[in-house]
Amino acid sequence: MAGIKQVQRQTGVALWRQIADRIREAISRGAYDETGMVPPETVLALQFGVNRHTVRSALAALAQEGIVRAVQGRGTLIERKERLNFPISRRTRFTDGIRDQARETRALLLGHAQEQADAEVARWLHIKPGTLVIRLETVREADKRPVSRATSWFPAARFAGIGEAYRTAGSITKAFAALGLSDYVRATTEITAAHADSADIADLGLTPGAVLLITKAMNTDLEGVPVQYSISRFAADRVQFTIEN
Amino acid sequence: MAGIKQVQRQTGVALWRQIADRIREAISRGAYDETGMVPPETVLALQFGVNRHTVRSALAALAQEGIVRAVQGRGTLIERKERLNFPISRRTRFTDGIRDQARETRALLLGHAQEQADAEVARWLHIKPGTLVIRLETVREADKRPVSRATSWFPAARFAGIGEAYRTAGSITKAFAALGLSDYVRATTEITAAHADSADIADLGLTPGAVLLITKAMNTDLEGVPVQYSISRFAADRVQFTIEN
Repeated sequence: MAGIKQVQRQTGVALWRQIADRIREAISRGAYDETGMVPPETVLALQFGVNRHTVRSALAALAQEGIVRAVQGRGTLIERKERLNFPISRRTRFTDGIRDQARETRALLLGHAQEQADAEVARWLHIKPGTLVIRLETVREADKRPVSRATSWFPAARFAGIGEAYRTAGSITKAFAALGLSDYVRATTEITAAHADSADIADLGLTPGAVLLITKAMNTDLEGVPVQYSISRFAADRVQFTIEN
Repeated sequence: MAGIKQVQRQTGVALWRQIADRIREAISRGAYDETGMVPPETVLALQFGVNRHTVRSALAALAQEGIVRAVQGRGTLIERKERLNFPISRRTRFTDGIRDQARETRALLLGHAQEQADAEVARWLHIKPGTLVIRLETVREADKRPVSRATSWFPAARFAGIGEAYRTAGSITKAFAALGLSDYVRATTEITAAHADSADIADLGLTPGAVLLITKAMNTDLEGVPVQYSISRFAADRVQFTIEN
């Protein structure tokens, strides 16, 4: 079989960097999951058609990134950075979704305020622009590591006091229950990705240039009336989303 | 109402940069969609509690990024960069999904090969590691702009010749049909995000540091037997995913 993703010798990207990219990709695909190790340098050199020195430079770069670790006498171990798996479905609940994957989850209320809905919030909540809404700013942690920050809006007329309810209850589901809404469903989720901004970096403990998964999500009551619109920003190296159809 | 996301004067991030982040975020939220313009400098200065010079520096940075454009006598226009909306559901089809949003879509076959399934491909396709699979490397374009590159694997025993079939037909759906599989469904989709690697940059025409949305997806026939496993890498500034429950 002819390799169809051979390294390119004239792309202006250093050869060791191309090899590092290939190995990083193989790791993230799970190609080495069975052993938990990167294949030996000699094997990689043969596979990519480069010399061992180039492979060694690539592995050194990946070690620098914290993706692999050289262990004397054993080889190059893959550092596990398990992502929390966050299922997206009609029954999406943050805490339930990651319950089995973290010993402890925490929801921090950074602040809340009443304000007038702008065009976008009004469109998602099916209300008129200018209608009063309550905005919550929250951060969620799993095992003491920040996972996401979110801005959520609720119709103020129906959910007066949701800020305090959330602070007391520690979850949207319980805050809704305290205000008389016993059940709700996820109606729509939009997913994009972007670089972290300065607030993400501060709130999620990221480094500049970090990548985020961003969801815009709308929840409704069981009659289909919107009860919540949220923009959530997840550290992309800590979370993945799964959709089962 | 007290602002709960006031700028922080001692975070070590320049004030104009914080303001740029806030405005970028408001734009991406669609907060200014009604006018298609950023509010006047005086309004922004008042809103953020900074002077006009700081606002001007922030807008200049956003203009540099191509997010806004100053127009003499009119103000600061938001540059539309519409993302293709790609619905994820049991009926997910790439071409159908974006059909209404692009005048022209194109699928390029970069190469195909027969190989032995590694541990990860085997797990997704419910076959034994080492079983023969056919791997396709493809790039998809919408209106001549590359949108995604994908690596797909198919059980070789069932789909011999799918490389040639894809090259002729220009879509997975048609290639399947040519090989006797008239219908299939999306069973599972995992979504992550990461920085582009050197192959992404080359194939998708990105700049270093660009952000990708990455899907791992498994399609089955109507009996639930896996027929395809794909890893697709989408330029995050060109695509969003939508899940309707």
